[in-house]
Amino acid sequence: MKIAIYGYGNIGRGVEAAICQNADMELTGVYTRRDPETVKPLTGAPVYAADDLLAHKDEIDVVIICGGSATDLPTMTPALAENFCVIDSFDTHARIPEHFAAVDAAAKRGGTTAVISGGWDPGMFSLNRLYASVILPEGKDYTFWGRGVSQGHSDAIRRIEGVADARQYTVPVPEALEAVRSGAQPELTTRQKHTRECFVVAKEGADLAQIEHDIVTMPNYFSDYDTTVTFISQEELDRNHKELPHGGIVIRSGVTGLKGEHKHTIEYKLTLDSNPEFTSGVLIALARAVGRIHSRGDYGCKTIFDIAPADLSALSAEELRAHML
Amino acid sequence: MKIAIYGYGNIGRGVEAAICQNADMELTGVYTRRDPETVKPLTGAPVYAADDLLAHKDEIDVVIICGGSATDLPTMTPALAENFCVIDSFDTHARIPEHFAAVDAAAKRGGTTAVISGGWDPGMFSLNRLYASVILPEGKDYTFWGRGVSQGHSDAIRRIEGVADARQYTVPVPEALEAVRSGAQPELTTRQKHTRECFVVAKEGADLAQIEHDIVTMPNYFSDYDTTVTFISQEELDRNHKELPHGGIVIRSGVTGLKGEHKHTIEYKLTLDSNPEFTSGVLIALARAVGRIHSRGDYGCKTIFDIAPADLSALSAEELRAHML
Repeated sequence: MKIAIYGYGNIGRGVEAAICQNADMELTGVYTRRDPETVKPLTGAPVYAADDLLAHKDEIDVVIICGGSATDLPTMTPALAENFCVIDSFDTHARIPEHFAAVDAAAKRGGTTAVISGGWDPGMFSLNRLYASVILPEGKDYTFWGRGVSQGHSDAIRRIEGVADARQYTVPVPEALEAVRSGAQPELTTRQKHTRECFVVAKEGADLAQIEHDIVTMPNYFSDYDTTVTFISQEELDRNHKELPHGGIVIRSGVTGLKGEHKHTIEYKLTLDSNPEFTSGVLIALARAVGRIHSRGDYGCKTIFDIAPADLSALSAEELRAHML
Repeated sequence: MKIAIYGYGNIGRGVEAAICQNADMELTGVYTRRDPETVKPLTGAPVYAADDLLAHKDEIDVVIICGGSATDLPTMTPALAENFCVIDSFDTHARIPEHFAAVDAAAKRGGTTAVISGGWDPGMFSLNRLYASVILPEGKDYTFWGRGVSQGHSDAIRRIEGVADARQYTVPVPEALEAVRSGAQPELTTRQKHTRECFVVAKEGADLAQIEHDIVTMPNYFSDYDTTVTFISQEELDRNHKELPHGGIVIRSGVTGLKGEHKHTIEYKLTLDSNPEFTSGVLIALARAVGRIHSRGDYGCKTIFDIAPADLSALSAEELRAHML
């Protein structure tokens, strides 16, 4: 399967590495809105200008769109779906229905197949919420994120006056996790579920007390959480906080029996050294499925909910039944 | 959807209870090979002789076959698939390919849709092994069972001379679990992964030392494990060991990056008060999917690998995208 990477940031590099782990995949080009001369893929793959994508149509089975959800994907994915089978990792949960509608219309016009919102949340976490809810219809879902770097929260801190650099970790509260795992189905506030740890590099002469106050009182991002702020040097941040680990836990706690007398918990837990590389692993598996679905003449937009698991695997149905069931 | 339960043991009762939790499901009959007069369903559902199933064809969309994998299902599922959409929980992993072939041929002859091997292993555990393997192709799978009652091992103990009753718990070794969770990808022997705890009621005058020896040296069942034997009274067994809890953990530990420099673990954990009731929850969701797949004219045998997750849910595709993705 011939893959094009459209956008070469953290996810683009992750997809490039993931292709190397899948023998049935080949990277035929990296497409960038920057000057192609300035982009040097890790594997030496050819780099083209984003505008030249259509000229390379014969070299591409699936385009993996590695853009941002806020401004890139809402226009990029529908536009590309007119001519290509595409995958994206659109992660603005509230806007998924409108994004789906736009991509679905474009893909149906173009006779292509698209999958939106691939990754782990939305993505594998969504899938686990769905499977768990159908098995335990009388129950309650809990999602915890972390311990991991939130890039959105790190960016928010960097916009504060006097801040040179920052990394923010989202951390599940252990007591909340244990209460959920016990089957007690607790009601948990935002503050009870997660804490936020901020590592901040201040500019020379900045007012540290003011920075800390600006962080912990920031609406939406921090004011509803117990937040700790630790000032460190740029060297320490570069040494200890350059990676992008993440992860999280989805738990459904439910009951069965005629009187609800038996408790059950279903827990799905991810522990990831590299958020973008794990996300890329999901995208590559979805690319395989998109190719298969398109070859059956099934056009339009799909999500991970619409994809039979066997379509994600390079193994045949017979091999899967014999060795994995 | 009109459901028939074929066989009324632990799973049959579990399915009956699960139907009550799903508003789109209706139990139209329990079919038994025993004298129907002697079977009293918990919900007061009508009971018929197993041989009368075909006479009630109009009242049935899907038959959930609640028989044993050793002798019942290999003949029962293909026979019933000639005339009905069916689900079973066939769990003899090594014989799945031949069972699939027999059911597939019958279902294609009959124009029906069948799903075999529903439950949690095979079933949800298989599904998690598949999803995890496609996301992390360079990695290693680990499956732990328990803490929970193994009915096969309990039966094996009961066949020993001098034993009146017994319950056997399979227990994961905590150190093995921690080693796997660390991302170290250890090689683990059978003995290193699980221990076996046996609670045994001896007959009056039985030779306890001989019973213990017969248990711990039993090939396949116990000789490869560290096994503990505790003798208790029938009263204590009835009081503390009558339930059928189970569960387990599937972990994939893998690496990403061009040099495999980032570690990841994907963990799926079930903690179940009632093994048969949880299994039944999976079967009911599969029944919904079978009805949908059949209504599209897609006949033959399927497994959980072939079913798009959305087909398991009573919610519409739009609702799933808006609220669960």
